[in-house]
Amino acid sequence: VGAATLGQLKPLAVALGDPAGIGPEVTAKAWDLRATEHLPCFFAVGDVGSIEAVWAGPIKRISDPLEAAAVFDSALPCMHVPDDGETVPGLPTLDGARCAFQSLEVATGLVRAESAAALITGPVSKTQLAQVGFQHPGQTEFIAERCGVSRGNIVMMLAGPTLRVVPLTIHIPFAEVPAALTATLIKARAHATARGLRRLFGIEQPRLAMAGLNPHAGEEGLLGREEIDVIAPVLEVLRSEGLDISGPHSADAMFSPRARAKYDAALCCYHDQALIPIKALHFDDGVNITLGLPIVRTSPDHGTAFDIAGQGHAHPGAMIAAIKMARDAEICRRSRIETV
Amino acid sequence: VGAATLGQLKPLAVALGDPAGIGPEVTAKAWDLRATEHLPCFFAVGDVGSIEAVWAGPIKRISDPLEAAAVFDSALPCMHVPDDGETVPGLPTLDGARCAFQSLEVATGLVRAESAAALITGPVSKTQLAQVGFQHPGQTEFIAERCGVSRGNIVMMLAGPTLRVVPLTIHIPFAEVPAALTATLIKARAHATARGLRRLFGIEQPRLAMAGLNPHAGEEGLLGREEIDVIAPVLEVLRSEGLDISGPHSADAMFSPRARAKYDAALCCYHDQALIPIKALHFDDGVNITLGLPIVRTSPDHGTAFDIAGQGHAHPGAMIAAIKMARDAEICRRSRIETV
Repeated sequence: VGAATLGQLKPLAVALGDPAGIGPEVTAKAWDLRATEHLPCFFAVGDVGSIEAVWAGPIKRISDPLEAAAVFDSALPCMHVPDDGETVPGLPTLDGARCAFQSLEVATGLVRAESAAALITGPVSKTQLAQVGFQHPGQTEFIAERCGVSRGNIVMMLAGPTLRVVPLTIHIPFAEVPAALTATLIKARAHATARGLRRLFGIEQPRLAMAGLNPHAGEEGLLGREEIDVIAPVLEVLRSEGLDISGPHSADAMFSPRARAKYDAALCCYHDQALIPIKALHFDDGVNITLGLPIVRTSPDHGTAFDIAGQGHAHPGAMIAAIKMARDAEICRRSRIETV
Repeated sequence: VGAATLGQLKPLAVALGDPAGIGPEVTAKAWDLRATEHLPCFFAVGDVGSIEAVWAGPIKRISDPLEAAAVFDSALPCMHVPDDGETVPGLPTLDGARCAFQSLEVATGLVRAESAAALITGPVSKTQLAQVGFQHPGQTEFIAERCGVSRGNIVMMLAGPTLRVVPLTIHIPFAEVPAALTATLIKARAHATARGLRRLFGIEQPRLAMAGLNPHAGEEGLLGREEIDVIAPVLEVLRSEGLDISGPHSADAMFSPRARAKYDAALCCYHDQALIPIKALHFDDGVNITLGLPIVRTSPDHGTAFDIAGQGHAHPGAMIAAIKMARDAEICRRSRIETV
């Protein structure tokens, strides 16, 4: 892998997310830094006006990803998906949500059709999307469906330079977590995570670490029994199947620098158990990468940030990291297909 | 406050915690660094043998805290509380748990009697303590009882250089958190936290930030209703009572560097929501400080670490930070009593 393989990559598709969020701004700022950050060719998919509203740089509309490479040095290539209303940064609208939905659909289709090398998705408002007929808990589940993959076989991983985490349950209420955390789920996600680390990160013998659900991983049953009744037994099974997986660990102790050095990915019982440490440590360079898809898909690990949209303060670090990780993962994936 | 007040402080009492844990080692290592770290005079309370098992430095037995000051420059003063069994680092025993229990009792009594300026407690094993008749969920609740303060009026705060967190529920199973998180609890803890920040940290107008329970703070009810039904209404009441409290915030977003700069303490719904970020960010210098007691009590924010006890690897940073914070809080507390 390297320059030769990289040279053959098609351009990467960046769906801008909600036009009133910070997606357009961080995408444009990433383009500004394309040379110093050594970014591969990418193009935006979304409303051109949403970029113009927050950025004064050059934009060139394209109608086919094939046009992106010739444009990329001098302008941000954009495949226009109109927002039928007026885009006002920081003020989400239903028209904007429809535009985000459509941009995601278009960008996913282009990657599925192999017209683009990988998919990067900007942040959306789930509340707004739910009001315009979006039936999925998040963009990840939508993409899985479009790729013909069951939700049960995909894994959302958040990755930063010093930590990778996988939330085993995601967008469900806190109170529903204990019942959702089944042996079947843990087993499927652990294997899918190990496969993803091999396939997209080239880690041949992935070391996984499983968090406990209760304080101090239940402290031998004093503070809850899920570790004894569910987690520990399934970890035994996974080990017998050849997986290198430790735990259940006390969740509060496993994200220290020394603990993090001992595993390649932490499996977490619920959304915040995974997202709190990754965002505390890697707020400006955390990436959401979906494992288990036939395509590579990443996303900057931040929200729409409507409160700062349009003010020029949005940090492009996570978008830049998402573009780089998508490129690296796609190169890794292709090299393994070619050598197998 | 400063050198004059500091000079008048009685010595600080450090209960060593479980003799087979890393408490004795980090206490002795803190004494090693007393000059470079500018530590105030302190003395150990626990089994002398548990220190000797892991440290070759000078120890001087004392029978009264009054003797500590004359000893401190040349030896670690220790008020001996015998472990009736043999202390083997890394191998907890019931005799060791009894020793930890007794050491806590003695040290707490000395601070209550104003023979010592403040209490620092080393790590214990709750599992072991529960087997020797210790009836409390943790050391904090025991100390509250000995101080004649109801558990409902004390607050456990974890504090590091860039973050302070308060878990509103602590040592209970995950599944019991939603029912335990009542308006009454949030209200009492918020006021107690604000009082504690004024009294022990000298922050006259504390800014509090309350976390949501569900992913994305429930995302307007889509992912759980506790924010709408319980948290948001009580925050409104607290604001009307003059408290500066924001939220409910998306828990995963509130521990980024920029978010942390906007509050003095984060109120968290449960143990790991608070302890994951503080330990991810401040594993080697996080301090547990109890608000609402008539005395100052701190503790290094780590466990017994039986797996590394006796190997010489234990990091004394958190114990040093706990000793310093106890000193500073006691000076702050006294100065306010004197000036009121």
